[in-house]
Amino acid sequence: MPSILYPRLAVVGAGLIGSSIIRAARAKAVVGEIAVADPSETVRDRVAALGLADEITADPATAARGADLVIFAAPPLAIGAAAGLAAATLKRGATVTDVGSVKAAIAEALAKVMPPEVFVIPGHPIAGSEQSGPDAGFAAMFEGRWTILTPQVRGDAPYLAAIDRLTAFWVALGAQVEVMDERHHDLVLAVTSHLPHLIAYTIVGAAADLETVTRSEVIKYSAGGFRDFTRIAASDPVMWRDVFLANKDAVLEMLGRFTEDLQALSRAIRWGEGERLEEHFTRTREIRRGIIDAGQETPEPDFGRHRKTD
Amino acid sequence: MPSILYPRLAVVGAGLIGSSIIRAARAKAVVGEIAVADPSETVRDRVAALGLADEITADPATAARGADLVIFAAPPLAIGAAAGLAAATLKRGATVTDVGSVKAAIAEALAKVMPPEVFVIPGHPIAGSEQSGPDAGFAAMFEGRWTILTPQVRGDAPYLAAIDRLTAFWVALGAQVEVMDERHHDLVLAVTSHLPHLIAYTIVGAAADLETVTRSEVIKYSAGGFRDFTRIAASDPVMWRDVFLANKDAVLEMLGRFTEDLQALSRAIRWGEGERLEEHFTRTREIRRGIIDAGQETPEPDFGRHRKTD
Repeated sequence: MPSILYPRLAVVGAGLIGSSIIRAARAKAVVGEIAVADPSETVRDRVAALGLADEITADPATAARGADLVIFAAPPLAIGAAAGLAAATLKRGATVTDVGSVKAAIAEALAKVMPPEVFVIPGHPIAGSEQSGPDAGFAAMFEGRWTILTPQVRGDAPYLAAIDRLTAFWVALGAQVEVMDERHHDLVLAVTSHLPHLIAYTIVGAAADLETVTRSEVIKYSAGGFRDFTRIAASDPVMWRDVFLANKDAVLEMLGRFTEDLQALSRAIRWGEGERLEEHFTRTREIRRGIIDAGQETPEPDFGRHRKTD
Repeated sequence: MPSILYPRLAVVGAGLIGSSIIRAARAKAVVGEIAVADPSETVRDRVAALGLADEITADPATAARGADLVIFAAPPLAIGAAAGLAAATLKRGATVTDVGSVKAAIAEALAKVMPPEVFVIPGHPIAGSEQSGPDAGFAAMFEGRWTILTPQVRGDAPYLAAIDRLTAFWVALGAQVEVMDERHHDLVLAVTSHLPHLIAYTIVGAAADLETVTRSEVIKYSAGGFRDFTRIAASDPVMWRDVFLANKDAVLEMLGRFTEDLQALSRAIRWGEGERLEEHFTRTREIRRGIIDAGQETPEPDFGRHRKTD
């Protein structure tokens, strides 16, 4: 049983991820008291009803006061302002982190407003679901998942100790921790997460606009592959708006490459170049095998076997 | 318990779908003897080892001889030639169908080679997985799934009776049956299946080619959405090559619409148009709700809750 790593935890933004951190941290007994700040009265009421926090406020500064660990779990572009408010009450030696899906923009925003006597260690747990809000969180959210930390460029011993402690926190919650440069994080996630979401949002939107195929037909026959896209395209709109705006360059770069390849395949279809198509479709199987070999996908349960993809 | 609908079933192509039909038809006891034709010796050996058929041959004509129901379960563009071989031995009044993911091209190919005294009823069970081959099939493959039949334009009583019997066969295997014009089928499936596959193949291929992000990073952090695409992009390359070639016009039409929308979203990202993004991302949630309301997605089991999408 790990002991208390942070006597007071402040979570700013109690949505899917924020509320999951609270549930997990409490389940693993690695924090003492828990303060929550959220600008939404509805969310605060649910946090109260769910008994998630010892202190509930609209004001980040109130929650952050005296906290040993402050986690910003707000949509990416809301973090800078919330951090600006919280900065005033932070105690010397507090650790400040976040869970945003983009890192360079948030790292910059945090660096700008945070006082020098706190330890800023931006982070990103690669976990979630298409649900939103405090009711959707659960304690097992981070088990077996990766959390990426993108520390600042400073090598002083107290800062390194703060990284070690934050790592221990995520490990206690069930995650594996990787340290990475924030710009590289944004490139990697542009490929593995941001572009897939943009594409899923696009195809589901395009399908909704057709005149020749009805929406009910799209829904009825969605099992042929489309259904997987609809789950991804049901993710939180505000958070994803912020992700694309905050990681614009990497997303547009990856999108450019994707579009080139799509045009090449489209041309191969138009000209009936079967060999080229088959070669491409065979190559993509290797990546899947890599994911299964790396244990990033559990062997499909019965649910998966019945999933329809043709 | 349904009684025997077809005393002799011939399945031409014993891959994932063909072998699942055999398993399901035998489990439901709706056929008598089962003949399999497959050009691959490896497949024939597996069919024998699995005890799936009473008669195993490389020759479609041998399997089709005396059959009451002949199901072509080969890749779409291989069906015409196989049907041409089988035509010679078909008995009067036999029903001929297929399971191809495109229908207009296959309907045309079958109409060209089949004698007038058999009942040609093209079909498409919307079921499958990213696995291939006779070992990957399973009897429950079609339970709760849709099978679309695209009958010829003829209203004679024997033909209508043949449709009824084939419908009863699919219902016995657990499917719901819908009748549709073959060109409309190809449009609907271009949206709900073919375009999603093309896009998944493209993004997985593009990710494999990056220099700035390693393949092992793509695999390691695939839980952010990419992983779902890799499953789709692991589907059978030959079958999908054929699907795109055989449904070229509908796929390119849908691809054109998708590309326009993707460019519009890309432009919104480039110009920082947050409202437009948020509006689009909110709208796509409705489609997801429709799928859940229509019972096309079972409530997520624990497996699903832990699925990571951000």
